[in-house]
Formats: sequence, structure tokens, C-alpha cells
Amino acid sequence: MKSSVWLCATMALACAADAADKPPAAATSPQDVLARSAPGDWRALDPQNTLYMELATGRVVMELAPAFAPIHVSAIRKLVRQHYFDGLNIIRAQDNYVVQWGDEENKRSLGGVSPTAPPEFGRTLDRAASFRPLQDPDVYAAQTGFIDSWPVGRDPAKSQEWLTHCYGMLGVGRDTKPDSGSGAELYVVIGHSPRQLDRNVALVGRVIQGIELLSTLPRGTADLGFYVKPEQYVPIRSITIAADLPADERVPFEVLRSDTALFGDYLSAVRSRRSEWFVEPTNRLEICNARVPVRVGR
Amino acid sequence: MKSSVWLCATMALACAADAADKPPAAATSPQDVLARSAPGDWRALDPQNTLYMELATGRVVMELAPAFAPIHVSAIRKLVRQHYFDGLNIIRAQDNYVVQWGDEENKRSLGGVSPTAPPEFGRTLDRAASFRPLQDPDVYAAQTGFIDSWPVGRDPAKSQEWLTHCYGMLGVGRDTKPDSGSGAELYVVIGHSPRQLDRNVALVGRVIQGIELLSTLPRGTADLGFYVKPEQYVPIRSITIAADLPADERVPFEVLRSDTALFGDYLSAVRSRRSEWFVEPTNRLEICNARVPVRVGR
Repeated sequence: MKSSVWLCATMALACAADAADKPPAAATSPQDVLARSAPGDWRALDPQNTLYMELATGRVVMELAPAFAPIHVSAIRKLVRQHYFDGLNIIRAQDNYVVQWGDEENKRSLGGVSPTAPPEFGRTLDRAASFRPLQDPDVYAAQTGFIDSWPVGRDPAKSQEWLTHCYGMLGVGRDTKPDSGSGAELYVVIGHSPRQLDRNVALVGRVIQGIELLSTLPRGTADLGFYVKPEQYVPIRSITIAADLPADERVPFEVLRSDTALFGDYLSAVRSRRSEWFVEPTNRLEICNARVPVRVGR
Repeated sequence: MKSSVWLCATMALACAADAADKPPAAATSPQDVLARSAPGDWRALDPQNTLYMELATGRVVMELAPAFAPIHVSAIRKLVRQHYFDGLNIIRAQDNYVVQWGDEENKRSLGGVSPTAPPEFGRTLDRAASFRPLQDPDVYAAQTGFIDSWPVGRDPAKSQEWLTHCYGMLGVGRDTKPDSGSGAELYVVIGHSPRQLDRNVALVGRVIQGIELLSTLPRGTADLGFYVKPEQYVPIRSITIAADLPADERVPFEVLRSDTALFGDYLSAVRSRRSEWFVEPTNRLEICNARVPVRVGR
């Protein structure tokens, strides 16, 4: 079986167990870098920013990004706390694109949540934020990099920055009007990054664990991947904010901090693939291929 | 339901039916361009380059690219014709990465097919080929564009060009040695484009139809997404070359030709999103977001 090697170099964490298999001579792999991380190189998820979506197949854990979309995140928290999503459905799965959930029939009340929200498609460039730039030019943005472990595009000329539509990012569906996304209808990217959506729709977070529960859903056969029949819908048992659970029922996920020297080493190792397998070390790195490592802390 | 609009602009064909829903004022959409295509704007798949993979869930249709990997494609054709793949299994599904099939136990004879092949990871730049460049700089390649409707990266300084690891591309698994890929173990990209693999492994084709039968497979839980138990394997009933079937059992797939004026218009429409929904028309296009339209001809 000739397949244990050729993909290892592309994964952040999944390959750690594989590293002993064929240690590259004198090369520093992403796994090597992570192996020497200290506790301070990791950032715990804030329980107030952590959502647990319970499906029949298991739990999807998501992190919210209030620093980029505070109004939408506040609305989503309110909806979650009034159990708005509990019993609703995933109504759409479009291959190489998104999975989406919400109230197909617009029957539920939003409670006190506004049906409109300002278009938080980006924000004014935060010069106080610790921005870790990628060194290679991007197709879609003047600059890309990480802020607080989030993938970000930047346009210094316009003094704007925004979250990028990478695999696993969580966004707010909207209608034609830019302010028409309330937070009651959400989507997750499950395919090649649709970066043309950047700055056109509000990204509010990302999947931290369990995306395979979404990415393997049967694709809908109606236009845009909507399910044709309600029997095809995938029920959402509940969405909960981790902070609303007893501390011992929360899972202490951590993401690698992007403002450390170690993160720079990690990006370098991902950018230049020096394992024995690679004949061409690439020496390039695109933002959506620079995935931030996740682990469960203690 | 507020979701019929916000994704339409990203699909090539799936949105045609949706176009009447909210016609953008005086804008040319990708669907508009395709609607005025003539028969000569499409290229029929060569039955010698068309594979039908039959699974219990349906058929996956793939196109081979002998112009880029002639030796590998020849080996794959031979393997198919000696029924090498029939009864083998999909043994791996790694989220956001690849699905892979082959002979897990190396029990089958390759017949007359060599267990090694020259590393067809790219080719010398073909100056006679009709190259349709994308205008935006790419992260990974000095140039990107299309040749004969295939997505291609180019390095004029080194006089090289290669197929790019976009969603749905078909490649040949290999071990550490660059010549160790025979064609007996194949993978398909089912996630964000792992462009770091470009020029490191032989791409030999792409999925034309039925990728959702691969992309929705349960993910393997062993390292690198391998299935843990043989009971989890997904059986391949058969792989057949379309040319070996009676003409009336073939499906006449066509891809949009990349060497026409219409294709240029199509790329422009995909690059600059001018529908009512977009507040920022993007005006950028990355090779793996420039998906080549496919249809069934007559």
C-alpha cells in the first residue's frame, strides 16, 4: 500500500502520528513545529463564542468571531438562547459549495432579533491588531494573513479587512439587499473556497470540529443544492452556547495563536514542504491552505 | 426563504434555471454567456478518454488527460481493460482533501503494466497549444489558464506547464519515489485545492459527473482518512472506458471549449460579478474557481 506518505505533508495535525513513519532528513515539518509548542502558543476558545450544534450523527463545534461581525454575532447568540434553531433543519447541501440551515418556511418568530443587520462584510483595518501576513501575493486580496488566528484579507488602500471564505467558515445567508441577513439563516463552506463571496456577505465564524457531519450530507438535487422534499431535511436537535453549559460539559478546544514566533515557524513549514516525498517544495502558501491547527486542551 | 439568490452567481450551469428569478439589470452573467453558446463552443469528450466508474450509488464519469500524462493514462487504460479495478474498493476519504481507491492489499497483478512510471508531474510548455490565460496573478504559479479546457499552471522561465489540483481533479497516488505511481492507485480532490501538490504528483484527469458520490462518502477515521475496517470500504463494481461500450450506451458529455471568444466572455462574467446581489463585483478570478461548464450534448 503506497499511500501513507503522499498526503501527510498537507495536514496539520492528522499527520502527527505519521511523522515517525518516514522522518524527513533534517527537515522541519509542520508537525515538528507543533510538537515543540508551549501551552502559551495556544488560545482557548471563549465559551461565549463557542456553539455546539447537535445533529443525530453527532456534534458540530463552531467558533464565533465577534471582532469581525459583532452585530450578527450578538443576534446569533440571542437566537440560540431563545432556542430559535432547535428543531429547525439543514435544508441545503450544494456540492463544492455550502451547507445551509434555517427556517425554510419563515414560520418562527425571531423574538427580539432584528430581521435586518448592517452589512458586516468587513471592518475598518484595525492597526492595533496583531496581523500575521502571508508573504505570497493573493489572487483576491492585496494582503492576506491572520488576526487572532482568523484568516483575513486586507486592502490597506481602502483601510479595510475581512474574513476570507475558506473551507469551514460560517456565514450569514442574505437576500439581495445587503442588510437582509439577520443571522437566522447560516451556511458553512464545504468546498473550494468561494472567495468571490468575500466582502459580499457576513462571515461570523468557523467550524472547529465535526465538519465531516456537514460535508458528507447528501447533496440536494434542487437548484443550488436545496433538498427537494422535507423528508430529506437534516434535523438540528439544538444549538447551544458552550458558556450556557456547566463547565464540565464543555470541551476545551484550543487554536494555535497566530501572534507567536511559533506560528511563523509553522507557516514557514507549511509553505516549504521539505519532506522526502516532495520533489518541489512549493515555497508558496495561500490563505485557505494555511489551516490553523486545533486541539483539545486540558 | 431568503436563499435563492445569494449563491446563484457562483455556479456555472446550476443557476441557469434560476436566472429568470431575479434578472440583474443590464448585467451579463455566466449563464447569459452560456445561453448564447453555439454547438461549436463545446467539445465532446473523447470516448477513449472517458471512464465510467460504477458504484452501488451510481456512476462517476471521469475524463482522462493524455496530453499531460500520456504514460500514466496509457497504463490506466490497460488496467481498466484488464478489469483491474473491478471489485476493488475506495479505501480512503479524508475530509477537505481526497478520496482514494486501489488494491489495499497489493494482491492483484498489474498484468503487463509497469509498477513504476516516469514522473509526469508537468510537461514542457507547449507553445503550439491554445493557452487561455487568466489575468490575475496566482499564488502558486507564474501563470494560470486553460489549455483544451484543462486548468493549467505555467512557469515560462522554466518552460513548464502542469495541471492544477482543483476540486474534482484525478491523480495518481505514489510512494516516496517520484516514479512509484503506476496508475493502479487513484485519488480525486474533494476539498479546497491542495495546490502544494502541483508538480509533485501526476494529475491524469478529472471528474465530469457524479463527484457527489465521492465527496459525500463517510470520512475514514484512521490517519489520513483511511477506513479502519474493510467493512467500511466502498466497492467499485467496475471501471469501463466509454469507447468499449456500444455507442448508444455512452453519455455524450461536452465541456466548454477554452479556445473560443465565448470562453473569454464566460471568464469575464465569472470574474466580475455584476448581479444585483453582489455589492463588490470581485474583479478577480482564481483558476480553481473558474470551473469549466459541462453539459450532456446530443
